[in-house]
Amino acid sequence: MIKVTLIGAGNLATQLGKALKKAGIIINQVYSRTETSAKMLGELLETEWLTDITKLRDDADIYILSVKDSVLCDLISEVCKGREDKLFLHTAGSMPMSCFEGKTQHYGVFYPMQTFSKAKDVNFKTIPVFIEGNSTATEDMIRKFANRLSQRVITLSSADRKYLHLAAVWACNFTNYCYTVASDILGEHGIPFDVMLPLINETTEKLQTLSPKAAQTGPAVRGDKNVMSQQLELMRHNADLQKLYQMLSKGINPMVDNLILDNKED
Amino acid sequence: MIKVTLIGAGNLATQLGKALKKAGIIINQVYSRTETSAKMLGELLETEWLTDITKLRDDADIYILSVKDSVLCDLISEVCKGREDKLFLHTAGSMPMSCFEGKTQHYGVFYPMQTFSKAKDVNFKTIPVFIEGNSTATEDMIRKFANRLSQRVITLSSADRKYLHLAAVWACNFTNYCYTVASDILGEHGIPFDVMLPLINETTEKLQTLSPKAAQTGPAVRGDKNVMSQQLELMRHNADLQKLYQMLSKGINPMVDNLILDNKED
Repeated sequence: MIKVTLIGAGNLATQLGKALKKAGIIINQVYSRTETSAKMLGELLETEWLTDITKLRDDADIYILSVKDSVLCDLISEVCKGREDKLFLHTAGSMPMSCFEGKTQHYGVFYPMQTFSKAKDVNFKTIPVFIEGNSTATEDMIRKFANRLSQRVITLSSADRKYLHLAAVWACNFTNYCYTVASDILGEHGIPFDVMLPLINETTEKLQTLSPKAAQTGPAVRGDKNVMSQQLELMRHNADLQKLYQMLSKGINPMVDNLILDNKED
Repeated sequence: MIKVTLIGAGNLATQLGKALKKAGIIINQVYSRTETSAKMLGELLETEWLTDITKLRDDADIYILSVKDSVLCDLISEVCKGREDKLFLHTAGSMPMSCFEGKTQHYGVFYPMQTFSKAKDVNFKTIPVFIEGNSTATEDMIRKFANRLSQRVITLSSADRKYLHLAAVWACNFTNYCYTVASDILGEHGIPFDVMLPLINETTEKLQTLSPKAAQTGPAVRGDKNVMSQQLELMRHNADLQKLYQMLSKGINPMVDNLILDNKED
C-alpha cells in the first residue's frame, strides 16, 4: 500500500486527496499553514492533520506539495530535509522541477490539467496529468502512481509545461473573462446571463470535434465591417473594452484592423 | 396550418427550417441566391426551392428573411412588395426592426440566441428566442409562432438586441479565439489540443451555477505577478498576444496593470 502525505489543503489538494482515497491510496497526513484548511481536509479524508511542519512524520512514501508558487521553495527545503530517500512531487504549472535540485534525491512533477474547486468534485480519471521525474527510474515510479489516478498520463518537461500553463490561462481564465464582459453588457440592459448558456455550451461542444480555428464564427472572421463598427460604437464609454474588441477581432482576422480604420475614415 | 417561406438557406435558415418542420409547420418554399444552397435546403425540407426571387409565391402566411445583413434591406423591398397583408420576420441580431418600415404592414424580428452550423443539429426548444413586433397584435402573433419552436421566448427592442448580439460576440466568438491561441501555443510545443478539453468543459460547467465573475480563477485574479511576468516573457515573439494578455489580465483585475509594470522595473 502506498502512503501519501499532502502538503497543502487548497482546491487542488482537496480534489487530489479525494481521488487518492478513491484509488485506495492511504493518505498519511495533511499539512496546511492554516488550521481551518488543515482540519477541513484532514476530516474530509479521515486522516491526521497538522499545521506545524516540524511534526511531519517520516513514514510516507510520497510527499506531494500543492501550495502557492511563492512558498513552494521554502517548503521544499523543510519537507525534504532528513527524508532524502522518499519521493517528492509538486503540482505547480509554472514552477520548474529544478526547485528540488540539491535538496533531495527522488523528485518530480505531477500537474493535472484542470481547474479545481473544493466544493465541486471532478472525475480525476479523465484529467490529463503531466509528469516529469529527475531520473528514468523516478519517472517510472511517478507514471505508475499517476496511472492509478488518471487514464491519461503524459511526460512533459518543465520548459514545455510553462507553455501548457500559459495555454490554460487562455483557454480557461481569459475565456471566463469574456463571459464576464458578456454578463456585464447583458446586465446593463436587463437581460439575464443565462440566455447565453445554450450558445456557450454549443461553442465548447463544437470543440469536441472541430479545431477552434475551424469553429470560428462571427463578424470578425466574416470581415463584416458594418457590424464591427456598430459594436465598437456600443462600447464608446469603455475605451479598454473597445481596444480589446479591436485586438481580439484582429487576432481572429488580420484584415480586420484595416477594415475598422477604413470605416472610421468614411 | 401555418405556412412559412424561408428567404435564405444558410446555417440559421437550415436549422430553423428543420425545427419548423419538426413542429408541424409547413415550409412553403425556400429561396436562395445560389442554386446549390437552395436545392440542398429544399431537398432536406422536402419542399419547393427557387433562386429567382420573382417566382416567390404569395400563399405563405409568414416570410422569414435569414440572409446576410448587407443584402437584407434590398431583399425586404422585393419580398414584401405586393404581399403587404402577410407577416415578415428577419433573424439578424444587429439589424433593427425598422428595416421593414414603410415597406409593409406586419413585421418583426425573430432572433434565436445560438450559433448554427448546417451539419450540426441543435435542440431548438432550449434556444432563447428574442422577438419584436411592429404592433401589439403583430407581436402576439410572433410570440405564438415562436412558442411553437422554443420554450423561452423573450420580447426585446432593436436597441437592446444590438447589445445582446455584442454580448454573444464576447461569449462565443472571442472565447473561441482564446481557444485558438491556446491551440497555437500547444501546437508549437507538440502538445495536442484535446488535453485542454476537460479544463474547457469544466470552465463552462461552472457557469451553469456560478456567475462568471465568481468563477474567475488564474494568475490575474490572484494578482500573481511572478506567473504573469513569466508568461509575458513566453510570448516575447508576439507583441500582439503580449498586449492582449496584459489587457485581459487588467480586465480581470484592475490592479494587474501596475503589478506588471512594477515587475518590469525590478
